[in-house]
Amino acid sequence: MNSFGRIFRVSIFGESHGESVGITIDGCPAGLSLSAEDLLSDLERRKGGKQKGTTPRQEADYPFFKSGVFNGKTTGFPITILFENNNTRSEDYQKQRSIPRPGHADWVAHEKFGGNEDYRGGGHFSARLTTGLVAAGAIAKKLLNQINITASITEVGGEKDIEKGLQKAIDAKDSVGGIIECVVTGLPVGLGEPYFDSLESSLAHMMFAIPAVKGVEFGSGFAAAKMFGSEHNDAIENMQGKTTTNHAGGIVGGISNGNDLVFRIAIKPTSSTPKEQTSLNWETQQQETFSIKGRHDLCVALRAPVIVEAATALVLADAMLLEQRIPRIIKD
Amino acid sequence: MNSFGRIFRVSIFGESHGESVGITIDGCPAGLSLSAEDLLSDLERRKGGKQKGTTPRQEADYPFFKSGVFNGKTTGFPITILFENNNTRSEDYQKQRSIPRPGHADWVAHEKFGGNEDYRGGGHFSARLTTGLVAAGAIAKKLLNQINITASITEVGGEKDIEKGLQKAIDAKDSVGGIIECVVTGLPVGLGEPYFDSLESSLAHMMFAIPAVKGVEFGSGFAAAKMFGSEHNDAIENMQGKTTTNHAGGIVGGISNGNDLVFRIAIKPTSSTPKEQTSLNWETQQQETFSIKGRHDLCVALRAPVIVEAATALVLADAMLLEQRIPRIIKD
Amino acid sequence: MNSFGRIFRVSIFGESHGESVGITIDGCPAGLSLSAEDLLSDLERRKGGKQKGTTPRQEADYPFFKSGVFNGKTTGFPITILFENNNTRSEDYQKQRSIPRPGHADWVAHEKFGGNEDYRGGGHFSARLTTGLVAAGAIAKKLLNQINITASITEVGGEKDIEKGLQKAIDAKDSVGGIIECVVTGLPVGLGEPYFDSLESSLAHMMFAIPAVKGVEFGSGFAAAKMFGSEHNDAIENMQGKTTTNHAGGIVGGISNGNDLVFRIAIKPTSSTPKEQTSLNWETQQQETFSIKGRHDLCVALRAPVIVEAATALVLADAMLLEQRIPRIIKD
Amino acid sequence: MNSFGRIFRVSIFGESHGESVGITIDGCPAGLSLSAEDLLSDLERRKGGKQKGTTPRQEADYPFFKSGVFNGKTTGFPITILFENNNTRSEDYQKQRSIPRPGHADWVAHEKFGGNEDYRGGGHFSARLTTGLVAAGAIAKKLLNQINITASITEVGGEKDIEKGLQKAIDAKDSVGGIIECVVTGLPVGLGEPYFDSLESSLAHMMFAIPAVKGVEFGSGFAAAKMFGSEHNDAIENMQGKTTTNHAGGIVGGISNGNDLVFRIAIKPTSSTPKEQTSLNWETQQQETFSIKGRHDLCVALRAPVIVEAATALVLADAMLLEQRIPRIIKD
Repeated sequence: MNSFGRIFRVSIFGESHGESVGITIDGCPAGLSLSAEDLLSDLERRKGGKQKGTTPRQEADYPFFKSGVFNGKTTGFPITILFENNNTRSEDYQKQRSIPRPGHADWVAHEKFGGNEDYRGGGHFSARLTTGLVAAGAIAKKLLNQINITASITEVGGEKDIEKGLQKAIDAKDSVGGIIECVVTGLPVGLGEPYFDSLESSLAHMMFAIPAVKGVEFGSGFAAAKMFGSEHNDAIENMQGKTTTNHAGGIVGGISNGNDLVFRIAIKPTSSTPKEQTSLNWETQQQETFSIKGRHDLCVALRAPVIVEAATALVLADAMLLEQRIPRIIKD
Repeated sequence: MNSFGRIFRVSIFGESHGESVGITIDGCPAGLSLSAEDLLSDLERRKGGKQKGTTPRQEADYPFFKSGVFNGKTTGFPITILFENNNTRSEDYQKQRSIPRPGHADWVAHEKFGGNEDYRGGGHFSARLTTGLVAAGAIAKKLLNQINITASITEVGGEKDIEKGLQKAIDAKDSVGGIIECVVTGLPVGLGEPYFDSLESSLAHMMFAIPAVKGVEFGSGFAAAKMFGSEHNDAIENMQGKTTTNHAGGIVGGISNGNDLVFRIAIKPTSSTPKEQTSLNWETQQQETFSIKGRHDLCVALRAPVIVEAATALVLADAMLLEQRIPRIIKD
Repeated sequence: MNSFGRIFRVSIFGESHGESVGITIDGCPAGLSLSAEDLLSDLERRKGGKQKGTTPRQEADYPFFKSGVFNGKTTGFPITILFENNNTRSEDYQKQRSIPRPGHADWVAHEKFGGNEDYRGGGHFSARLTTGLVAAGAIAKKLLNQINITASITEVGGEKDIEKGLQKAIDAKDSVGGIIECVVTGLPVGLGEPYFDSLESSLAHMMFAIPAVKGVEFGSGFAAAKMFGSEHNDAIENMQGKTTTNHAGGIVGGISNGNDLVFRIAIKPTSSTPKEQTSLNWETQQQETFSIKGRHDLCVALRAPVIVEAATALVLADAMLLEQRIPRIIKD
Repeated sequence: MNSFGRIFRVSIFGESHGESVGITIDGCPAGLSLSAEDLLSDLERRKGGKQKGTTPRQEADYPFFKSGVFNGKTTGFPITILFENNNTRSEDYQKQRSIPRPGHADWVAHEKFGGNEDYRGGGHFSARLTTGLVAAGAIAKKLLNQINITASITEVGGEKDIEKGLQKAIDAKDSVGGIIECVVTGLPVGLGEPYFDSLESSLAHMMFAIPAVKGVEFGSGFAAAKMFGSEHNDAIENMQGKTTTNHAGGIVGGISNGNDLVFRIAIKPTSSTPKEQTSLNWETQQQETFSIKGRHDLCVALRAPVIVEAATALVLADAMLLEQRIPRIIKD
């Protein structure tokens, strides 16, 4: 299923070098003011080509609303948003085809889909599919108007000084990974449930849906495993549930506790490194060295914050609707 | 929803000090040989009271089959398994009630459920609910007969020498956390999908459903964020997809690649530390110091491996059925 | 999936002659007063053996709460209710086994489940499974306190005079079918959606889940197909949406319109007729005549009204929660 | 949710007079040959303007594939198909707006969505949304290549002679309803489950998602309620499960029994009758007489057979995939 969410449900479609990519948002309340303008600044943040270390591929990324908006407001019916693919250079990929790129899904896709996959630019696996997520996330953010979601890069290539981390990659002619931290303020107490619908489960599910994510931790996360209980426990201070520390990252028993929600995700280095690599050529059945062509990010983590924010907003909007904390009709 | 899975679907119910805890498994293929015997060794591993550092609470934990098994085989209909709660000491909790225990769900449960929650022993939040998961996991393991799942503790209280980590806790009269590593061998290529149904998403979703889990990472995980791409990429060696290294932990593009599946989870220290703590008394609205009564694990990570194995088996059985790699009728 | 509902979700389990039958209700709001007493009168209505034409099998049908209720109120966690099977006479079925009973699921179950099905008394197919539905329905009715659901038999064996229809069956030593009509008053405007979540879709889905149902129609139903549009259209009279006629049965565009919800279901005659029948003996592979043993209803429609009410209540409670018309915490 | 299906899942979007209507099909196996050509003949059958009694509105109804097809085959990823709306005359509807049309969803949509609904041409409620269903149905039919689905009109305006029924409507300057019968041959034994996933439940759920459907019956349906058991029971004749009669319509215990699947649906008369009608004007709050403008079918049943076939194919393809009777990769 290429869908996520119980009430506010998103479904993605499209391929990197196909006709288009897009998303359908089902279950958005009626009456929310919405226009393409509302999505542009987040879509701009996601785009490459602006920063050192991001891909020179430039798509207009204009969101075409195909349904669900009428007279400038959501109707309560599915909102389909389409992005056209104009700026594709597929020939880069056709040459590469017989050598599955290490770190990429080329080989598994070929095995799983029997050779029917659209291999151009990673096809459906491409991070271009996150364009739709960012658009839907911008809508979710509008619904969550009292709640503030901020994701930022805290580390690139092992360096807290991000510029330094990038320079390391440029110098090494290699790609690097990074860490994103996301902080949510203004969240009410009570979102999530113990076990399968824990807020951690939903958020982690969504975060691992973002290409290149290999780790997720909440609050103190892996560091908690080294702590004593007396040290890790967050003492409750007042009747609003404010805690003195926030080792839990704002979630206990799977449920938001009214403190800041804090989590971090690990992004692996871009698989398409400019460095020469070795892999199997499935035609010759021999190992072969080659260099990846195509336009790629040196560090995908640079473009990830807005995607992480969108993914977070989608999870929270769904939980808020489920908990009846956002009405089915917005009056604004 | 207290349920997980699309085809092989488990639903848990029960409270720590209520009548019983249990699980229903829907979608299990017909024809699988099954008796209580098949579940006992895993249930035994989950039990406390056997090892240094685990709770002295002892339940018989005998799995009563209430449906779905006939003439020693599964029928294809829902299997409900009940565990009776016999050995409860609820009075420990009633005294504690006005002071929500730090690190526990007491306060959020009270806020979310309007005071209707069964607070005794953590109620539905209790790790006792994992008894059902372990039982269902043992059934899933039987279905996955060619696949081997092994979880083990790799670190307690920051120490690789587990005994030493535990002794640290005992000496400090405090609780400690730990790290569990899970390795799956024999997995076919092709389980999972990119995006929302990535194998990482499903596994992380399930892992964060286990109480006390605060971090999940696959392969190199958080360390990947510090690596170069040329270093992290796993080169494909042969036509079976075997890679020279396994930084990806056996998953690329959300899909199993035929190498060992490897992931680690961070378990926070047991919230019920024997140390004196401070929290808010919601009757007096004052901070108060107190010590936790009741029987508790010094380190819940000790009992976690079998739970992690069960959780993993549930995710994999579901994916294998979805991918038509396990038939709807077992002939054995 | 043996489950139904998006928010208020029921899962049934059990076999007619197995250990037990039961149901789990997930997603019930917290704070609803609930005891076994609340369920007994509906369970009593479902029971056979009281009326002319119903099976002499008598089960205590006492609902044992296994979870989800604490201090006389629902906790917001899954409610599991168990009914013990005490009064079973399985030997009746073992003799019959090689001749699949016409009208029953014997043959398809055998084919589909590879011979692993519990064939005693119809196993999981048995109408005994509706015991759980009736219990859950009684809980749903409590949630729908302003809404009144009444199902009644309007026809037996083709006769509006029910006694006469039954007597016809007794005289013919045969079983008969019947028609149930269900009327719901007090329903708000706005439940349901066009297309797949139309109120008609949800109700019909649930009604066809009841064994022996072979037809469902709303409002004028099949008679509407013979009408002119000007005749069938219900003119709106006032600002509350009251219509002069109710040919639509209270649903337009898949959505409740505030008028009485009216639908009818067709129940086929009990398959276990006392009359001699012919079927294939799968051992001899010959046609054979035989008479059905066991205790059966002459007309299952007689016991159906309370099941239809329960099924209706389950659909409506789910829709009301989804539409935020029932809160997540009940204060009573 | 504007979605249906567990494995082969369709999601519809769009409005009658908006930008477009469309559908996304998720879970279609990879490797199925597919082009727009494959959909055209069914789309043509759905179109109005060709037959006496259908709307003169003419849309090109050309299916634009936006994703999921590559090199003439399905990729295994979501297939999004878009239909442009070109031939709309929205002004007809704006005039009408203050008087909700009897039989239509105007009033309930307004109440439910707070006035945010796209009211032009019925918006999302319009039968134009079935264009996507027909396209998806044509794909499902390709998957079900051994199975034949045929729906046909058996009655219009109460007349078995369809021409006569239509003439009756034309003479009366009124609209009429009709009956559709659907017969499926070549279905294997074993699709469906007892209770909530009964084949009857799934089919009825889907049929009531089609606008204007007010009744569904399987096999003898409502007539079964008037029969004796000995008369209704279908005796099994041979080891393939062939029955002498087919009163069950090919389904027992919710499961296909290998005989022809037969069901009938009742279609109400087109709500937009040319006859003068009375309804409430919500501005003046007075009853008012008016005539419906716009282009409409005298009898929507005429265009329904291809929609019923599509709906049936969608349900069966989903069940076949769930039962592992269609592989995940098609080799043709």
